[in-house]
Amino acid sequence: MTALPSPTALPALTLVTGGARSGKSRLAEALARATGLPRRYVATAQALDPEMAARIAHHRAERGAGWQTVEAPLDLGPALADGGGRVTLVDCATLWLTNHLLAGHDLDAETDRLAGKLRAAPGPVIVVTNEVGWGIVPDNALSRQFRDAQGRLNQRLAAEAGLVVAVLSGLPLVLKGRMP
Amino acid sequence: MTALPSPTALPALTLVTGGARSGKSRLAEALARATGLPRRYVATAQALDPEMAARIAHHRAERGAGWQTVEAPLDLGPALADGGGRVTLVDCATLWLTNHLLAGHDLDAETDRLAGKLRAAPGPVIVVTNEVGWGIVPDNALSRQFRDAQGRLNQRLAAEAGLVVAVLSGLPLVLKGRMP
Amino acid sequence: MTALPSPTALPALTLVTGGARSGKSRLAEALARATGLPRRYVATAQALDPEMAARIAHHRAERGAGWQTVEAPLDLGPALADGGGRVTLVDCATLWLTNHLLAGHDLDAETDRLAGKLRAAPGPVIVVTNEVGWGIVPDNALSRQFRDAQGRLNQRLAAEAGLVVAVLSGLPLVLKGRMP
Repeated sequence: MTALPSPTALPALTLVTGGARSGKSRLAEALARATGLPRRYVATAQALDPEMAARIAHHRAERGAGWQTVEAPLDLGPALADGGGRVTLVDCATLWLTNHLLAGHDLDAETDRLAGKLRAAPGPVIVVTNEVGWGIVPDNALSRQFRDAQGRLNQRLAAEAGLVVAVLSGLPLVLKGRMP
Repeated sequence: MTALPSPTALPALTLVTGGARSGKSRLAEALARATGLPRRYVATAQALDPEMAARIAHHRAERGAGWQTVEAPLDLGPALADGGGRVTLVDCATLWLTNHLLAGHDLDAETDRLAGKLRAAPGPVIVVTNEVGWGIVPDNALSRQFRDAQGRLNQRLAAEAGLVVAVLSGLPLVLKGRMP
Repeated sequence: MTALPSPTALPALTLVTGGARSGKSRLAEALARATGLPRRYVATAQALDPEMAARIAHHRAERGAGWQTVEAPLDLGPALADGGGRVTLVDCATLWLTNHLLAGHDLDAETDRLAGKLRAAPGPVIVVTNEVGWGIVPDNALSRQFRDAQGRLNQRLAAEAGLVVAVLSGLPLVLKGRMP
């Protein structure tokens, strides 16, 4: 995946989906790097506890240098709007949706708003997201509500994306479009 | 998916699998519609609480008009048997299996019986099911038992089906046969 | 899957991944059988309670005769080292990782060690593993830690394997290499 030819063109929107710790971020970073464009990393994670802080540090170390990092836990608008001439990587839509859940927002309304902002973004955008609905039905209503909202978000972004790739055990599985 | 050519032939049995809220029902409905045949919808859900009632209403609204709906939470036999000249959509095998679990029935014996009834059905049948085994091992024995029974049911139906499609983020991934 | 031509060559390492009760073991056994080589089965399960004992007995019955079985819950070294002229099936990496978690070991260090032993194994090895990260984030830290370690293990083995196959509803989905 790191051997992608450069520079390669990406569609306006690319979606990288899959399970936790499957190599989604690594694939998304390789896709961004292969464009040869200046790279912006939009981090939706919040270091609210030591475990999350460790995850963020780990992701940052794996990503390496050469990224302009913008933290945007809730509103991706500014980070997406002034991205002309750049490739923007949003990592990830699942933490972004979790942040809105914790803030008590309407998740489907936020998804609508996000889709509009992605459509208006000037450069190619890559969004990392998670498949969260392949287990036993969660036994609490909030988890079920989140799972449904995440599923609808993924369907929405996949419908608009020109390239959709699932990642399993670090390996890409193209669902829509073509890998560059 | 809504742009499938019509009329298209379906095999005797089609299985549509995937995670929760991944677009399985929508794909199954599009496949049914594309046959050009009169459509029967076999609903296995029971509106036992407000959340389930809301899910059922939501599915019905998304499905639109043009369906004859039969409620069959446990015994699919009558709904399948007199389906000549029709396409029948069973949505879904996971709720059907859950209903049998709650009724204290032998899940593998019920699966055997279902397979026999599907084999005897006169028209094409589409069954929607869920992948439920891609998470951490559930910490209660009943969930593990259900997960195993669901896995065996999916293997059984997939072995008999002429077309098997997984759905991820709303996008189809053909596992067996060919999309019409 | 049982109709694979025999004898067929396998790469040094094959990884079979997927959800619980998806037919992973059955596919791995068919791949082993098709080599025509003497077969060794490396069982990582421990019959610590009646449920696990039942699962082990079930797997053994499904596997049939013709296997030399070696129990190796923690150290796969000896079972892998003297496998010359044989095909070795390790079932499964998820129980192996669970055993190390329960023993309080460093999971990433054990994964490194396992990768080295697999690389040194004299005959073809097939490893069965599980995708465990496609559900809602588990609410306890140990499950999250396990999920991450399993994801890293899967990525590591998939990167080294010549053939990687996911199994859904009993059907193979090739992610890397070619099915024999």
